Amino acid sequence: MRSTLLSRRDLEFLLYEWLDVESLTRRARYAEHSRETFDAVLDLSEQLATKYFATHNKLNDTHEPTFDGDTVTLIPEVGQALAAFAEAGMVGATMDAELGGAQLPAAIAQAGFAWFHAANPGTSAYPLLTIGNANLLAAHADPRLVQRFVPPMIEGRFFGTMCLSEPQAGSSLADIVTRAEPCDDGTVGVSEPGPEAVAKRHHAGPSPDQYRLFGTKMWISGGDHELGENIVHLVLAKIPGGPAGTKGISLFVVPRFLVHEDGSLGERNDVALAGLNHKMGFRGTVNTVLNLGEGRWTPQGAAGAIGYLVGEPHQGLKYMFHMMNEARSGVGLVAAALGYTGYLESLDYARTRPQGRTKGAADPAAPQRPIIEHTDVKRMLLAQKTYAEGGLALVLYCARLIDEQHTAESEEERRARTLLLDILTPIAKSWPSQWCLTANDLAIQVLGGYGYTREYNVEQHYRDNRLNPIHEGTHGIQGLDLLGRKVTQHGGASLHELDGRVRATLAAAQELGGEPAELADRLENSWTRLIAVTGSLFATGDIEVALANSSVYLEAFGHHVVAWIWLDQMLATHGRTGDFYDGKRHAARYFFRHELPRTGPQLDLLAGLDTTTVDMAENWF
Amino acid sequence: MRSTLLSRRDLEFLLYEWLDVESLTRRARYAEHSRETFDAVLDLSEQLATKYFATHNKLNDTHEPTFDGDTVTLIPEVGQALAAFAEAGMVGATMDAELGGAQLPAAIAQAGFAWFHAANPGTSAYPLLTIGNANLLAAHADPRLVQRFVPPMIEGRFFGTMCLSEPQAGSSLADIVTRAEPCDDGTVGVSEPGPEAVAKRHHAGPSPDQYRLFGTKMWISGGDHELGENIVHLVLAKIPGGPAGTKGISLFVVPRFLVHEDGSLGERNDVALAGLNHKMGFRGTVNTVLNLGEGRWTPQGAAGAIGYLVGEPHQGLKYMFHMMNEARSGVGLVAAALGYTGYLESLDYARTRPQGRTKGAADPAAPQRPIIEHTDVKRMLLAQKTYAEGGLALVLYCARLIDEQHTAESEEERRARTLLLDILTPIAKSWPSQWCLTANDLAIQVLGGYGYTREYNVEQHYRDNRLNPIHEGTHGIQGLDLLGRKVTQHGGASLHELDGRVRATLAAAQELGGEPAELADRLENSWTRLIAVTGSLFATGDIEVALANSSVYLEAFGHHVVAWIWLDQMLATHGRTGDFYDGKRHAARYFFRHELPRTGPQLDLLAGLDTTTVDMAENWF
Repeated sequence: MRSTLLSRRDLEFLLYEWLDVESLTRRARYAEHSRETFDAVLDLSEQLATKYFATHNKLNDTHEPTFDGDTVTLIPEVGQALAAFAEAGMVGATMDAELGGAQLPAAIAQAGFAWFHAANPGTSAYPLLTIGNANLLAAHADPRLVQRFVPPMIEGRFFGTMCLSEPQAGSSLADIVTRAEPCDDGTVGVSEPGPEAVAKRHHAGPSPDQYRLFGTKMWISGGDHELGENIVHLVLAKIPGGPAGTKGISLFVVPRFLVHEDGSLGERNDVALAGLNHKMGFRGTVNTVLNLGEGRWTPQGAAGAIGYLVGEPHQGLKYMFHMMNEARSGVGLVAAALGYTGYLESLDYARTRPQGRTKGAADPAAPQRPIIEHTDVKRMLLAQKTYAEGGLALVLYCARLIDEQHTAESEEERRARTLLLDILTPIAKSWPSQWCLTANDLAIQVLGGYGYTREYNVEQHYRDNRLNPIHEGTHGIQGLDLLGRKVTQHGGASLHELDGRVRATLAAAQELGGEPAELADRLENSWTRLIAVTGSLFATGDIEVALANSSVYLEAFGHHVVAWIWLDQMLATHGRTGDFYDGKRHAARYFFRHELPRTGPQLDLLAGLDTTTVDMAENWF
Repeated sequence: MRSTLLSRRDLEFLLYEWLDVESLTRRARYAEHSRETFDAVLDLSEQLATKYFATHNKLNDTHEPTFDGDTVTLIPEVGQALAAFAEAGMVGATMDAELGGAQLPAAIAQAGFAWFHAANPGTSAYPLLTIGNANLLAAHADPRLVQRFVPPMIEGRFFGTMCLSEPQAGSSLADIVTRAEPCDDGTVGVSEPGPEAVAKRHHAGPSPDQYRLFGTKMWISGGDHELGENIVHLVLAKIPGGPAGTKGISLFVVPRFLVHEDGSLGERNDVALAGLNHKMGFRGTVNTVLNLGEGRWTPQGAAGAIGYLVGEPHQGLKYMFHMMNEARSGVGLVAAALGYTGYLESLDYARTRPQGRTKGAADPAAPQRPIIEHTDVKRMLLAQKTYAEGGLALVLYCARLIDEQHTAESEEERRARTLLLDILTPIAKSWPSQWCLTANDLAIQVLGGYGYTREYNVEQHYRDNRLNPIHEGTHGIQGLDLLGRKVTQHGGASLHELDGRVRATLAAAQELGGEPAELADRLENSWTRLIAVTGSLFATGDIEVALANSSVYLEAFGHHVVAWIWLDQMLATHGRTGDFYDGKRHAARYFFRHELPRTGPQLDLLAGLDTTTVDMAENWF
């Protein structure tokens, strides 16, 4: 039976026929790999996701984590699934071999992860966070911290979190108040204090200096549980006396249990669970409020959560944002995977549910026909197909860029890929979050009353996916990031990079002639206008007016990017025959006819420098 | 403190300043009423909704009805709220005084009901269904049936349901298989059998003939519970030997308990609860599968659910559809009320939640500002305002038309109002269901992570409101109803009526000059194009092509209708000053700038007779 999680056929098309991921094996980092090892990862991911993750997705939803004041309890299936995940080497899929990783391209790893997200996003969130955490440490932390914390995460013994928000500081990280005080008790380093460590602190360059942290962190997914031996929190905090705002934020490793030099666990650290948040969806992922340094525990004899500085003081946000491209496109991947599985479930339903008759056979005595034959149902399936496959394609495209960035053969190539990723990331995060949620809405609609019941899966997808436009930077934040930063940064260099890619696809399509050329002409007109409108927004010199409709800009920009992704996919089908390729071409056609035109009025609004929202007075509400 | 359920100020504007509902008191039916009695209904509705309904809305969600195989248990707050509702005379608000009703205009009653829907749609669904049921009986049933069943419903002792769907027949009612067999045991009439009744059957014109029903009904809201003394099911079924398809459907009253001639309760009827459906939202309303005639009970000594024919045989669907205008605009009202309360809750949050700084004060040492000052938050609030107030206005406009229809002074007036209601009904049902759900989505987004938690109300609104595009005819069904029936019926007479109304508003706005005239010109251009496109769709003679994009048509049509409603509201603010009126005008402006233009690409698609969805082959998915 064909899986309703994802389409393996589509993944193979995207990875091999479109993105030519095999060619990455010519790069030294991936030289040990081949199409065979890539396929093995996809096989294993589908198997594990189907066997261990999909089987408790509903249970995760109906039996959310509980907290009895002492311990957080998850259903046991979560731990079993995560053990299988770690045992398969998936946590370290993309990490360096020397740390115990498999050094796979991100494009393959993300394709593998997509199976788990489609099957059970509540459970797959634990390793997703752990991977982000380990990647950040590997890139920015002192080698001793890396050695202490990263391999156990790869082995599945430690889990990781990211602690950014606080009750009074969500989108506005400048306003965090968690403070990190340098230890005045002479304790330094990841191990117990000693003269050697103290000497190191003063003489050996950047070292994992020890601090005591005090504050409250909000919305911490995976913040407390008994899944593994330890939880490694990455915490943003301010060192007293540092600069105000975001420039005074530093990053710390704060383990739930201290870790001795030999890797064995020490005392419980002063990180206390203050309570759980209860969400509409994504219920399988425990979401917590954590109190650091409330004195519930007294590690090394005193209150205060012991934390180790990552990199340099006051550079914490920079490190976080360095990982943000991956974290945000990870959110996009979850959104796309949920959109995809909802699409396939509603497709299955539409093929088998008889209801009504098509126009040709209105005789009430004739048997009812499967609803897939109704035009409006085809519309809802086709829209889902373009959202789910388009979203997944976009995220895998970004993953491919990350691989090129990591293995760039020149500084120029690295910089070019970084610029491109910078501008695509808000789209890779927001577009699937918006449109694959719309896909889930359509999946419910295809199932009708049944889709609204908890006896089917699609309502859960809809609830789960609703988180994605919120976390890791809301939709509004992505719009400001795109228009207020990414399109203008480095003199428009990111936009220039993207423009080059889009125009290369347009040129290839125009050279082919026929339908691809026709679609390319349409996109070229609209894309050229988008670029012109972007310039005109900033020509006023009034930043408030320029950014007034940044969310509208984000949507318009996103639809252009995905139209380009669809056209590029269409090019990859050139000369190929069969239902699969016909379906891809028809989906591209649908996107150009039904979706891209939505951007016309959006560009009109932007071009007119509309200030309706700015002009609204608070008292008028 | 200002209510976050609805805005009383806006209701007064809509009812008195815009719709001039007071003028209805000049009609005989409403002559006993006055602005004072109308205001008393609004006062009482707000009070009861706040005191008895809002207080258990969350509890309804977390403690949904249970079924132990014998009895359905609801939380006790539901019964208490409904007793208060009935005691206040709200069930019979619009019904004839001679049946015990208050004979209020529908416009006032709907404004009153809106409070209850905003406060607790799960609980308010019980009287909503009861009212629809009682109205149908009053209009179409034999007086003896009316007398037997309607007054107890008005008194709150009996509840009502509508039993249309079956497991194999949802949207396609032609395929119901529940059968109604004329009693061959000589039993006839609502009372016990007797020679007089038999005689009546053959000689006394339409009588409440007795049948035995057998079949399964699906999605029956309020299908079983212990709230009152009895449940009155209105059941669609087929009398063997009748015409195939929808032309062979008859309507029956099937009480849970038989009712003696003196009004006392008799035997339990053979209507068995087969199980409950468990929904994503709207959990407070028990939703059931009912087995009729499975033999669990043997009323009058035999298996088979005893039912009494309503009106003539084979006319059941006509009676149902006669009530459909009210039922469907009732769904629109619930959707609008949920959109409204979500808007007000997110508005309150935005006024009080400090987060970040506006451009003028980017100094991180300055205090954070309430998020309502951020342009993108204003956008989300303004969009919600136009959806919620626009949706509510549309539904109240329709209610006003129902009042004119009921009290028409000429057959011509009655027909004109009916034609207008016919074409507005799919919009009044679908537009709030779509856009007030979008409003709820935006409310979550305004609250960010908090909005995604069950500690706040907005996530429940989002889940509750998701039902509305499904029940009482899905969005797709509304599109087919609008384009395939309503715009063409009677030679386009309904469209002609609406066109007259729209153009009257346009003319009035153009005469005023200034901004109203400018907006009117825009709407006139687009409206004229919509009418032209409607004609061109049918010019092909290919019905499949004409209806291919009926859902797109529905959306485009809906946005035009609501643009007209907004322009008409703007006219009602003419010459008035103050924040409230400024807000109304700015909302109208927003709708014309940000919303109406969405229809441009939709009309392009329709005008081009796009067949992308028709052309999609099933194997291409």
